[in-house]
Amino acid sequence: MTRLGPGGEASAVAGSPRWEGHELAYGVDVGGTKILGVAIDAGGEVRSQRRVPTPRQAAGSAARGQRDGPGGQAARSGGSETSGSHPGEAVADAIAALLGELHRDVSGRARDDASVPALASSPIGIGIAGLVETGGVLRFAPNLAGASGADIGALVMSRLCDEAGRNSICAKNDANCTAFAELVLGAARGMRYGIVVTLGTGVGGALIVDGRVETGARGFAGEVGHMVVDPNGPACPCGKRGCWERYASGAGLARLAREAALAGTLHEAVRLAGGNPELVTGEHVTAAAAGGDTEALHVIDELGWWVGLGLANLVALLDPERIVVGGGLGHAGEMLLEPSRSALAALVEGGAARGTVPVVEAALGEQAGAVGAALAARTGAMDPVV
Amino acid sequence: MTRLGPGGEASAVAGSPRWEGHELAYGVDVGGTKILGVAIDAGGEVRSQRRVPTPRQAAGSAARGQRDGPGGQAARSGGSETSGSHPGEAVADAIAALLGELHRDVSGRARDDASVPALASSPIGIGIAGLVETGGVLRFAPNLAGASGADIGALVMSRLCDEAGRNSICAKNDANCTAFAELVLGAARGMRYGIVVTLGTGVGGALIVDGRVETGARGFAGEVGHMVVDPNGPACPCGKRGCWERYASGAGLARLAREAALAGTLHEAVRLAGGNPELVTGEHVTAAAAGGDTEALHVIDELGWWVGLGLANLVALLDPERIVVGGGLGHAGEMLLEPSRSALAALVEGGAARGTVPVVEAALGEQAGAVGAALAARTGAMDPVV
Amino acid sequence: MTRLGPGGEASAVAGSPRWEGHELAYGVDVGGTKILGVAIDAGGEVRSQRRVPTPRQAAGSAARGQRDGPGGQAARSGGSETSGSHPGEAVADAIAALLGELHRDVSGRARDDASVPALASSPIGIGIAGLVETGGVLRFAPNLAGASGADIGALVMSRLCDEAGRNSICAKNDANCTAFAELVLGAARGMRYGIVVTLGTGVGGALIVDGRVETGARGFAGEVGHMVVDPNGPACPCGKRGCWERYASGAGLARLAREAALAGTLHEAVRLAGGNPELVTGEHVTAAAAGGDTEALHVIDELGWWVGLGLANLVALLDPERIVVGGGLGHAGEMLLEPSRSALAALVEGGAARGTVPVVEAALGEQAGAVGAALAARTGAMDPVV
Amino acid sequence: MTRLGPGGEASAVAGSPRWEGHELAYGVDVGGTKILGVAIDAGGEVRSQRRVPTPRQAAGSAARGQRDGPGGQAARSGGSETSGSHPGEAVADAIAALLGELHRDVSGRARDDASVPALASSPIGIGIAGLVETGGVLRFAPNLAGASGADIGALVMSRLCDEAGRNSICAKNDANCTAFAELVLGAARGMRYGIVVTLGTGVGGALIVDGRVETGARGFAGEVGHMVVDPNGPACPCGKRGCWERYASGAGLARLAREAALAGTLHEAVRLAGGNPELVTGEHVTAAAAGGDTEALHVIDELGWWVGLGLANLVALLDPERIVVGGGLGHAGEMLLEPSRSALAALVEGGAARGTVPVVEAALGEQAGAVGAALAARTGAMDPVV
Repeated sequence: MTRLGPGGEASAVAGSPRWEGHELAYGVDVGGTKILGVAIDAGGEVRSQRRVPTPRQAAGSAARGQRDGPGGQAARSGGSETSGSHPGEAVADAIAALLGELHRDVSGRARDDASVPALASSPIGIGIAGLVETGGVLRFAPNLAGASGADIGALVMSRLCDEAGRNSICAKNDANCTAFAELVLGAARGMRYGIVVTLGTGVGGALIVDGRVETGARGFAGEVGHMVVDPNGPACPCGKRGCWERYASGAGLARLAREAALAGTLHEAVRLAGGNPELVTGEHVTAAAAGGDTEALHVIDELGWWVGLGLANLVALLDPERIVVGGGLGHAGEMLLEPSRSALAALVEGGAARGTVPVVEAALGEQAGAVGAALAARTGAMDPVV
Repeated sequence: MTRLGPGGEASAVAGSPRWEGHELAYGVDVGGTKILGVAIDAGGEVRSQRRVPTPRQAAGSAARGQRDGPGGQAARSGGSETSGSHPGEAVADAIAALLGELHRDVSGRARDDASVPALASSPIGIGIAGLVETGGVLRFAPNLAGASGADIGALVMSRLCDEAGRNSICAKNDANCTAFAELVLGAARGMRYGIVVTLGTGVGGALIVDGRVETGARGFAGEVGHMVVDPNGPACPCGKRGCWERYASGAGLARLAREAALAGTLHEAVRLAGGNPELVTGEHVTAAAAGGDTEALHVIDELGWWVGLGLANLVALLDPERIVVGGGLGHAGEMLLEPSRSALAALVEGGAARGTVPVVEAALGEQAGAVGAALAARTGAMDPVV
Repeated sequence: MTRLGPGGEASAVAGSPRWEGHELAYGVDVGGTKILGVAIDAGGEVRSQRRVPTPRQAAGSAARGQRDGPGGQAARSGGSETSGSHPGEAVADAIAALLGELHRDVSGRARDDASVPALASSPIGIGIAGLVETGGVLRFAPNLAGASGADIGALVMSRLCDEAGRNSICAKNDANCTAFAELVLGAARGMRYGIVVTLGTGVGGALIVDGRVETGARGFAGEVGHMVVDPNGPACPCGKRGCWERYASGAGLARLAREAALAGTLHEAVRLAGGNPELVTGEHVTAAAAGGDTEALHVIDELGWWVGLGLANLVALLDPERIVVGGGLGHAGEMLLEPSRSALAALVEGGAARGTVPVVEAALGEQAGAVGAALAARTGAMDPVV
Repeated sequence: MTRLGPGGEASAVAGSPRWEGHELAYGVDVGGTKILGVAIDAGGEVRSQRRVPTPRQAAGSAARGQRDGPGGQAARSGGSETSGSHPGEAVADAIAALLGELHRDVSGRARDDASVPALASSPIGIGIAGLVETGGVLRFAPNLAGASGADIGALVMSRLCDEAGRNSICAKNDANCTAFAELVLGAARGMRYGIVVTLGTGVGGALIVDGRVETGARGFAGEVGHMVVDPNGPACPCGKRGCWERYASGAGLARLAREAALAGTLHEAVRLAGGNPELVTGEHVTAAAAGGDTEALHVIDELGWWVGLGLANLVALLDPERIVVGGGLGHAGEMLLEPSRSALAALVEGGAARGTVPVVEAALGEQAGAVGAALAARTGAMDPVV
């Protein structure tokens, strides 16, 4: 039996002889566009995976009100969100339903479904893209507008059962969950000091200090994407300008791609986009670069320079022994990591005197967040030795 | 009988009683994507209009070799251009054919087609997007790769006839032709000191000094789009970074649009783009703004700020009495001009002490370049009083 | 007899046999810190030179009020200016006194002092650092706070005499005067299309179009120093950010010098400054560079890059046949002009295709403005052939 | 008996009745310009303080070679460093001599000097401005050129004695020592998650994680000053551009001061500088601001904005419960901290949702580094509970 690969959607995993259906844990990763859930067994193997879109009324920009004047854009943009139930409720509904499906999946597949414990008594972890307090309350989530202030874990638990003795669900930051999964099962195994960075549409991150995921005073540590690297740079959904995630992300690649296309280069990517430079996306660039196109590779190099710039900042601050890079841009793999390493070496304080800090690809793919949430729920901490 | 409006493609214009078929002049505007030709009568009325795509082997980025290292991108990008005849030849072929059609149009429509003079003995003007020397040689044209060094006018003339006594064709810069048309027939009439700016995919411009279009020592004056306004800004097809045309153009709008969409704003434009922020184009923003969308209008304001910044530079340098703004972004009209005026007032040296420099919309639309080329061919100069 | 060299303060010039004392013209150059006056003879030779400090109450930043909020800094900074007479009056007093001295100088030295015409019937020109309307009214002068709105020429004339039949004095922009002197007597002789740039504490400029100094619709043309080249750059006395004069000037050199010294380089200049990096001035850098110091030369190269950047903008706009560079930074001479030329070549649109635009040093030194004012008063225009 | 205040130079501290001369520890803080040493008693009281200049051949820019081309500036700048003994030797000589003096001070003042233990058997700590490996080897020190690679602690120990059984000295980073002193005795007492930032000529920093000073995988953590916040910003001695320490430091203040003075503002500071805008230093600005000058306060506000920007980055990364700000710019106190707090609140991701992170002044002044080195030598770790 093999773990589901990244992007694998299949919800069925053939049973193995050793599978007894117990020691299951469930993890859910809540992003701005989709919610991904897994059930893992004692060994961390994914026994089921499910995915649903994030409920519409929860998506949107929480930062809008922050940036607009009174009565300005904030007022008019309110229309895109449904009134009625609190957005956190809609997310909790979706998560609870997803967990139910995962439970049915594994129950149906266990040798003896009676051996599968009830959902409410199994460890359940939730990772959310946003600032999640140590106690589980979501405090800030630009991509889950209006859900701020919600204790998603408690809302989900209240949907799962009425029984006494049920356990509790404590939501965590999604990147911290990803890092925990990599620490337990992936590319960060055995690491005492490290940084895990996820380069997707935005940039997430987590700090590994003294062998565990360090979440700081209130649980908010590791927001590497919102380190400002150019105060005059492009606007960020968080309300600032020039955050690292404006550069070292899918959004950054999209920006670089359009600039290059509009500057009359990127011919192959423009061709893939049907000939219109305005329609070149990051995926066109990645595809062209993968085919060896020099102009597209040049844009990937630029992207890598920005990745390396932020990594250099992180190395100066945290002195990690290794950096693990995951997220959707990880599909670019060595094509992106190689210029990132060069930029890191060139830009880090102390350069050669400091020695090389290896930059490696994450091992667990898009399931990492959900798997890490499940693992953290089981151990009750972000520390693999607990 | 009315002049063909901007964008009107009809090649037939109903004859008027006064139309005698003589005193015709022909003008052609050669851009990176299309060639537009007109025949005008003595009063400047457009009697016919024709349009063809710019021959493919002429299009491309001349700047590429300039920017790339030896053996790098320049080498590989060569493949997209056909070998064989010189690109100037292909353009000349297309222009000559277009002129023939225009001549047939007006001949067929004149009261007495014998009264229509032979093409080769009529004034013919050509405007080209690029640096055109006073003598007519094209010296630099990022959007007409490989045509640099060609005397397009001579090449066209050689295709028109073998007769002795033929006149000559002297190509000029397209924006200078546009300005001349506005000076003779449009929004710049009577102006002694002025600036004409065309905001399209790129930014063109022309200077009016002492009542005529001033073309400088060698004919290259007025390249306002390649005034650098941020040396660390986005790359430009010309090979530099941060040229004004990277900001105050369709390309600039496209860049601002993607940045805003990626920053989680521009909801209406993203909706028009089918929901994918990477696919938001300038046209989606203009459409949303025209519908009153505040987020889209905010992007138009930003665009206007950049327009105003460059205009402020031009006012400081040239002290015009008025500024005429044309080009494709002119469709945005007051929506764009109003924030441009505000930015100009705020940014120009001397501000209120200097007094307001009016910024007005161009009158002649997309035919302006071709009409101006015809007018200049007739007068033999860029001076309306000659 | 020789013309007074740049910086020569001597007010006595030995008489020549041809000197008859007639055809004298007087010119005054009013800057933010000093007023320099000359008397020139028919051949343009300087017969006397005088210099006084600019009256204190006239100096200061007119832009202050423009930049500060209501009741903020503007309110408190008012205290540094004396109340009482209008600042324009103080400047006029100083100019009138200076003219009187110049007249006494040349009268005492003429073969027959009776042959020296009365001051009020001689051509008198005044050049002022600021926006001067064609009619002579000063409209904006950041360095002559409060003198805005004054007709300095009329104020001076009213002090010179009460006689009927007196001529009039029409003030002009100082850089235009400088350019006119260079056009008549200096490095711009015979030029039809050119740019004269003065790199001093700030940056001044003038346009030569069709063989004369072009002053635009209202007399304000040529304000090259306030072309914005980085909207996020350092604040400018004019109230904007990132004007070219923040970079390509003595102020720019001072900024680059301090940055380099604070960055731990510029050792020789720091030594000249007594060891404190904060006290390194532009002059220390120039001195060290003149001695061959590589680190100082590197800073001069940076300065030259910024000079070249702005020149590239001007060339794109105006297509000059030649550029004349004067002003106090001219002392740096080839040391500065050489990197400026390299940057111009690298940054100008069209590069090699366009051909080299020569950049040459001004010929007339610090007297140029006063001499040009005198010449313009004599000819009544900024056109050498009038 | 009182602890020596910040800046107190007196080396004599009146004995108290309880003083027995035992449990002494020695600490030395090695900076680019001075070496400061202290002897502390069991309670952390400073019993003696001494200061000497950093040996000249050790000072200079290690980064120079890194930034220059082959044979360029690096070659010529070599002259300012003496040849002969390794620079680390000179530093060690100076430290050993300083320790001897401190020992004599406390011996002479103890009730019974026999009770003062020999130097070589007392805890001795050394803090150095640079990257110091966990084992004590200095790996990178822009301000102690050439000392890179030296084990300063071992070099010092070898000078102190030949006796067997001597203890060892393990150098540490100076800012980590400062933070440890603040953690044990100062403004960071009881803190579990915090950041200590020292704003001096440059910017140092240390991370407090889980109640101890976290030094990372190799001892290099906490280099907050070399987080890049603008890749196009001013050059840094470390070899990069736009490091935070270029802005939020004495160097940053000096840069802002000159820019403002050159922009025609900062009148009071220019007056203090003798009237020359180029000679305005950070101290002039601080003095003018302390006197209530609005223009100077505006520059301090700008400085505070940059301080806040970097703190916002650190908060996003590390989620501290409190931030302690020390260093020479701490003299500016609330005048600087107040705008820093405002900027932090405005710029930190999550803003109000995250809650306020208090920013407080450090308690221990310029002795903090030396005291912290002594404390760390005594405890053998950067953990107050060890």
